Amino acid sequence: MLVLGGGIIGLASAWRLAQAGASVTMLDPSPASGASNVAAGMIAPVTEAHYGEEALLGLNLQSATAWPGFARELEEAAGLPVGYDSSGTLAIAFDPSDKAALDELHRFQDKLGLESEPIPAVRCRQMEPTLAPSIRGGLNVPFDHQVDPRLVTQALLAACRARGVVVNSAAVTEILLSKGGFAGVRTDAGERVVAGQGVLATGWQAGRVQGLPASAVPPVRPVKGQILRLRLPASLPRPSRTIRAVVRGQSVYLVPRPGGDIVCGATAEELGTDTTVTAGAVYSLLRDAQAVLPILSEAELAETAAGLRPGSPDNAPMIGPSIVDGLAIATGHYRHGILLAPVTAAMIAELLSEGSSSSGSEWARWAAFDPRRFSGEVTQA
Amino acid sequence: MLVLGGGIIGLASAWRLAQAGASVTMLDPSPASGASNVAAGMIAPVTEAHYGEEALLGLNLQSATAWPGFARELEEAAGLPVGYDSSGTLAIAFDPSDKAALDELHRFQDKLGLESEPIPAVRCRQMEPTLAPSIRGGLNVPFDHQVDPRLVTQALLAACRARGVVVNSAAVTEILLSKGGFAGVRTDAGERVVAGQGVLATGWQAGRVQGLPASAVPPVRPVKGQILRLRLPASLPRPSRTIRAVVRGQSVYLVPRPGGDIVCGATAEELGTDTTVTAGAVYSLLRDAQAVLPILSEAELAETAAGLRPGSPDNAPMIGPSIVDGLAIATGHYRHGILLAPVTAAMIAELLSEGSSSSGSEWARWAAFDPRRFSGEVTQA
Repeated sequence: MLVLGGGIIGLASAWRLAQAGASVTMLDPSPASGASNVAAGMIAPVTEAHYGEEALLGLNLQSATAWPGFARELEEAAGLPVGYDSSGTLAIAFDPSDKAALDELHRFQDKLGLESEPIPAVRCRQMEPTLAPSIRGGLNVPFDHQVDPRLVTQALLAACRARGVVVNSAAVTEILLSKGGFAGVRTDAGERVVAGQGVLATGWQAGRVQGLPASAVPPVRPVKGQILRLRLPASLPRPSRTIRAVVRGQSVYLVPRPGGDIVCGATAEELGTDTTVTAGAVYSLLRDAQAVLPILSEAELAETAAGLRPGSPDNAPMIGPSIVDGLAIATGHYRHGILLAPVTAAMIAELLSEGSSSSGSEWARWAAFDPRRFSGEVTQA
Repeated sequence: MLVLGGGIIGLASAWRLAQAGASVTMLDPSPASGASNVAAGMIAPVTEAHYGEEALLGLNLQSATAWPGFARELEEAAGLPVGYDSSGTLAIAFDPSDKAALDELHRFQDKLGLESEPIPAVRCRQMEPTLAPSIRGGLNVPFDHQVDPRLVTQALLAACRARGVVVNSAAVTEILLSKGGFAGVRTDAGERVVAGQGVLATGWQAGRVQGLPASAVPPVRPVKGQILRLRLPASLPRPSRTIRAVVRGQSVYLVPRPGGDIVCGATAEELGTDTTVTAGAVYSLLRDAQAVLPILSEAELAETAAGLRPGSPDNAPMIGPSIVDGLAIATGHYRHGILLAPVTAAMIAELLSEGSSSSGSEWARWAAFDPRRFSGEVTQA
């Protein structure tokens, strides 16, 4: 069994497959270094709920519910922390028009039965005293949590190794087919790695994989995200939970880590594979972050980074079988890769393990994420 | 002869002293790495002219006039470029109130006979098409030039070595005196380096030097400056000369380097020895830079840095004899270290070389910079 890609999706899938008894080789020249390494790590299905994406919301909620158990099991298997933090999220409106947008989000959340409580500005500032005096109110969203993606991928690597997963640091140059089915890969080391089953989990690069029929290639594209790490001196107060905000119509989030860093993101830019950190993006993020938490002007600008998320045509991931026998696909997670790792890994392990136990109705629920919906021959289970 | 400090002032002094025949040892654990390495390198006496600093203006003009010859001689001696660029400077007003400030600067420059031509916004934008459409006008200052400080210090190091200057990478822990006169230094390597003459050129750290009588210690303090390097893609247009601007009352400068980098600075912060790059400073610099040159939003944020300039109580440098026999001082250059390097090195070499040829009247002109003005026993030459 080959897992192509060692980001959070590939790693989690490899771990679950190995646990299910498969003999797994994971290929990645630099595991845990792509979009997973830049991500903020919000486990936030409620504040990420969007009109028209109700199927995705269901998957997001399922994975968010799975996260605490996944984190505990992973920490135990790896002997390493993953930083799961259930302090909750406060969504903030900066001006009256942002307040209107937040009110609308709340009505949508409420209709879906999601836990989200409108609270006046004065109570927001009681909960988080570093908030700007001028904010217009917010939503208390106690079940939107966070995890530290850099800790998660390191723990997954350790857990994979403990389970006997072979980590091959070659880059895949081509998928090999035999009689139309998956047969292995060729690597940049000139090696042929032969296997009857594979998982394509190379993020945005899955859209450029060689060797597959065109209709089997997942239509993912890179969506650039720029992010900052701000470090407040230990002497200054800091927020105690994730702060999301709408600031003059722009979204910004601030995710505090235990060590004192605050992750601030993120842009969404369609610029191909460019990963330049730009003056314009850093400026907008700092502007909106300081508008909400003025104390951040005193923070060290400790890191700037850009990553490429795998965007899909309908904003939903591709998780499941491809039109090529033996090849599963797990990509297109866009802004939800960290959140969706537990459920994705479970689905992939279920699909590729012998003695699958998922009911037909369970796969029917997941049909919206079937990778074959872009291959011109969607199969409803 | 010992030169303490290997920033641009120490290096230029060591070079000139060695040229004059002295046997020179320069001590610095990390030459060319302090404030000189962060500086933008403007040779800009005209746009830096300030009320009440007419004596300093005279010295600035003298050194600016010396720069082209100094640069040529240094490039020849070192066999390395220093990036002297005589493209000139455009000072820009962002809004009507900034325009009033610039008009006032112009009247001051005009009164002093300095070359500075008020030009309307439309001509500013003809000269520099990347300027924001909304600017209110500017001053054309053709004789404010620039040099690349990182190239200058590397060239000075090479020129010093070619002249036989010994570079000792120990840190000075104490100045040694004998019968009240300079006798050498002790280093952190436990070494005593003996010499009858020395130059204290350790920038802001000169204010904390050990071993001198209190009244001989130059009262310099660190003044933090934060600076950015922005890199425009080769496909985009860029300014062809230094742009200085007043943006809503704040000064910002943009110094284009031949390679495509644009140096953007700078803050002036009294925060002791802190060199943290802060979110607040990066934000303000980016805001004002983009207000003047909107195209910079597309630039890579290639570097952020903070340096500590040696500030003096009267904003004028200390160049000349100390109250300790055999010890000269060259520090307190604050924002003018690069500009003043040629004249400072010439003064120090003149002072410490045998057969001094400077007239009494020349030293009288320099009395405003005599380090002993802070020792309670100023000597007028």
